[in-house]
Amino acid sequence: MSVIDETHDPRRESWVTSAKGHAEFPIQNLPFGVFSPSRGAPRGGVAIGDEIFDLRAGLEAGLFSGDAARAAEAAAGATLNPLMALSSGPRQALRKRLSALLFADNPERARIEALSAQLLHNASDCTMHLPAAIGSYTDFFAGIHHARNGGMRRDPNNPLSPNYKYVPVAYHSRASSVRPSGVAIRRPNGQRKLPSEDAPSYGPCRKLDYELELAIWVGPGNALGEPIPIARAGDHLFGLGLFNDWSARDIQQWESQPLGPFLGKNFGSTVSPWIVTTEALAPFRVPQPARPAGDPRPLSHLWDETDQREGAFDIALEALLMTEGLGAKGLPPHRMSASNTTDLYWTVAQMIAHHSCNGCNLAAGDLFGSGTISGPTTAGYGSLMELSNDGTREITLASGETRTFVEDGDEVIFRAHCRKAGCAPIGFGECRARII
Amino acid sequence: MSVIDETHDPRRESWVTSAKGHAEFPIQNLPFGVFSPSRGAPRGGVAIGDEIFDLRAGLEAGLFSGDAARAAEAAAGATLNPLMALSSGPRQALRKRLSALLFADNPERARIEALSAQLLHNASDCTMHLPAAIGSYTDFFAGIHHARNGGMRRDPNNPLSPNYKYVPVAYHSRASSVRPSGVAIRRPNGQRKLPSEDAPSYGPCRKLDYELELAIWVGPGNALGEPIPIARAGDHLFGLGLFNDWSARDIQQWESQPLGPFLGKNFGSTVSPWIVTTEALAPFRVPQPARPAGDPRPLSHLWDETDQREGAFDIALEALLMTEGLGAKGLPPHRMSASNTTDLYWTVAQMIAHHSCNGCNLAAGDLFGSGTISGPTTAGYGSLMELSNDGTREITLASGETRTFVEDGDEVIFRAHCRKAGCAPIGFGECRARII
Repeated sequence: MSVIDETHDPRRESWVTSAKGHAEFPIQNLPFGVFSPSRGAPRGGVAIGDEIFDLRAGLEAGLFSGDAARAAEAAAGATLNPLMALSSGPRQALRKRLSALLFADNPERARIEALSAQLLHNASDCTMHLPAAIGSYTDFFAGIHHARNGGMRRDPNNPLSPNYKYVPVAYHSRASSVRPSGVAIRRPNGQRKLPSEDAPSYGPCRKLDYELELAIWVGPGNALGEPIPIARAGDHLFGLGLFNDWSARDIQQWESQPLGPFLGKNFGSTVSPWIVTTEALAPFRVPQPARPAGDPRPLSHLWDETDQREGAFDIALEALLMTEGLGAKGLPPHRMSASNTTDLYWTVAQMIAHHSCNGCNLAAGDLFGSGTISGPTTAGYGSLMELSNDGTREITLASGETRTFVEDGDEVIFRAHCRKAGCAPIGFGECRARII
Repeated sequence: MSVIDETHDPRRESWVTSAKGHAEFPIQNLPFGVFSPSRGAPRGGVAIGDEIFDLRAGLEAGLFSGDAARAAEAAAGATLNPLMALSSGPRQALRKRLSALLFADNPERARIEALSAQLLHNASDCTMHLPAAIGSYTDFFAGIHHARNGGMRRDPNNPLSPNYKYVPVAYHSRASSVRPSGVAIRRPNGQRKLPSEDAPSYGPCRKLDYELELAIWVGPGNALGEPIPIARAGDHLFGLGLFNDWSARDIQQWESQPLGPFLGKNFGSTVSPWIVTTEALAPFRVPQPARPAGDPRPLSHLWDETDQREGAFDIALEALLMTEGLGAKGLPPHRMSASNTTDLYWTVAQMIAHHSCNGCNLAAGDLFGSGTISGPTTAGYGSLMELSNDGTREITLASGETRTFVEDGDEVIFRAHCRKAGCAPIGFGECRARII
């Protein structure tokens, strides 16, 4: 687990003016991403306030040495995979050095600030890319309220499958169609059959949904055949983002037996471009919520005392919907739900240990979805399937419009923040995409 | 669809002595793979008899020009992905040129044969690699006899799920753990629970199985959001190989609800190193077997007259098992089953059209498994699950040993051949791996 150090000190301010009290990217956050400046090739950067610190420019200016330089070089290219493959030593060294460089009371401040035209880009002038070349994308199912809500439609008496409390259930999904926040998603066509229909037909999805998930970015990988022990699984987490696992419910419902979701998911997914690192998240570690009485204790390869004590995260999540009707009336996006990562039944370390427990090889830049994170009540349901009860209950927006599923032109926006007394709040930026 | 031309002429012989009448790699085959010579980096090559033609050496010797040179350059590196991304024009030009270069009656023969020390490597001195960097691996379920045999355990009255005859059912599996033929596979550990047990436990797989599948290598891809029409789907097939979708049945049975197979599959898969191209397979195209009376006609996005007429392949498959007991008695591998790709319910073009019909983007070097290809009777069952009826029926080998599932030290070997009157028979080489 990463340590809390001076980089987290809430009194610490940056000389970058927009970073002061920034709701997402104060100096305590320092998330990594890949961006293109208005003129220039994709490269690694760090969000600071409304600016992006250009790691390539920092290297060219000779601002890094030793381990920090090694990490900055690994982060300066068109993907962060080389950075993700490094152990925590160089990553922590880079974080410390970045924090020092951007610190208002930095003794080098005058020299660094004088370079700011080279080092900093206004984020609004830049294009964000996928932060990594995603080798594999695996979607977990660790949001227990979502799993229960989905299972109610299958078997109201036993909504959770018998393995749910033993196995961090997951399936492989499609890496090639993951796109960064802001890229529009096309409503998919597909084969679908409603239970009321005699035969399937092919056409546009009639139940297009979003799923509010955490994006979990894998750091150093493991060799094929060599499981990652739960006690070391945390070392294989690079950081977190937000993930929209767009779901075509009608396609999914018809295709999923017996081998699981496929075309109902792989037409496109949206990930937030900034990765909040395990180092930045250190103050927001919390104990894994106790399992309800009667729930089985996980098998020993999924059980670690330290992980139970500090392996979960306290991250407040919200899903918002922007429609043309809301825009026409000058109204803000409609808040659909709010939940928290403490609603996950399994920790990230348990997911990593499970995924590799048969020897499956993970690699730096692999992406996990957490599974839809729903709260226990309607106010926290992280998908329209749950909010509209599979289309049977209309949701009324502030504009007077109603929704059961996503309409063309709608934009879905996820946000997330960590807040804790005695800590500077940090945010994840947005994960947003419009349906066309 | 590719055409039959002089490269397929059964009277054609190569000046490479071992290629004459070669059961796998006569001059009519010319499959592509990636190999390392005993001293040298990985590069593209073409199997000819017991030799490998080195495409990089051929380029250096100036043997290619125009489209053929473009294709040879794309095939000369450490992966065939660039070759796979080309359209059929350059690929056909390269095939024609290779066939001419290796042809016994080639007017350039003296000059080419004089270069043979550079151009040819003895295959037994070379190491074979994965032929491509596999972006995504998708496993279909198109072997209807296998699907029915599996479904009998769920519901003997309705062994096929309601979607089976409408949807070429598939799921995403793991690209990172696919290994070339010859690499040993470690018996996975995992969480498993037999129906007779009260709770799951973690330990070595107790029902390790193989699955006899076709490896389907995707050629040119499509852009996200742009489905590949069935009439053009054949243009997106680069070629075929053999695939062993190793399956840990006990892990799979416990984990698969509700999202499908995961750790029961992703601990390792084995693919044959040579890709038999669509061009080489042209003479072995056959009509898609007629659907039984009463089966629904596929929806129009999966239906093409030309595909029905010539979209299937006639490829004879066999699965063999080599054990220590057989080896000790000097006995050959035991033939477990023989089946044919005509046992597939869906054509490759239907798989490609289905996979992309929602806009999912395929890429050159993506790999599909066909699904286990079982024949209609026990003699053709392509997995031990079927042959042993989930472990309840022992299979006796010529050595007197018995098997229900794969034991440590066992080696599973797949072979495949195309044979047709008036054609030179061609083979796929082997897909083999030992369990350790």
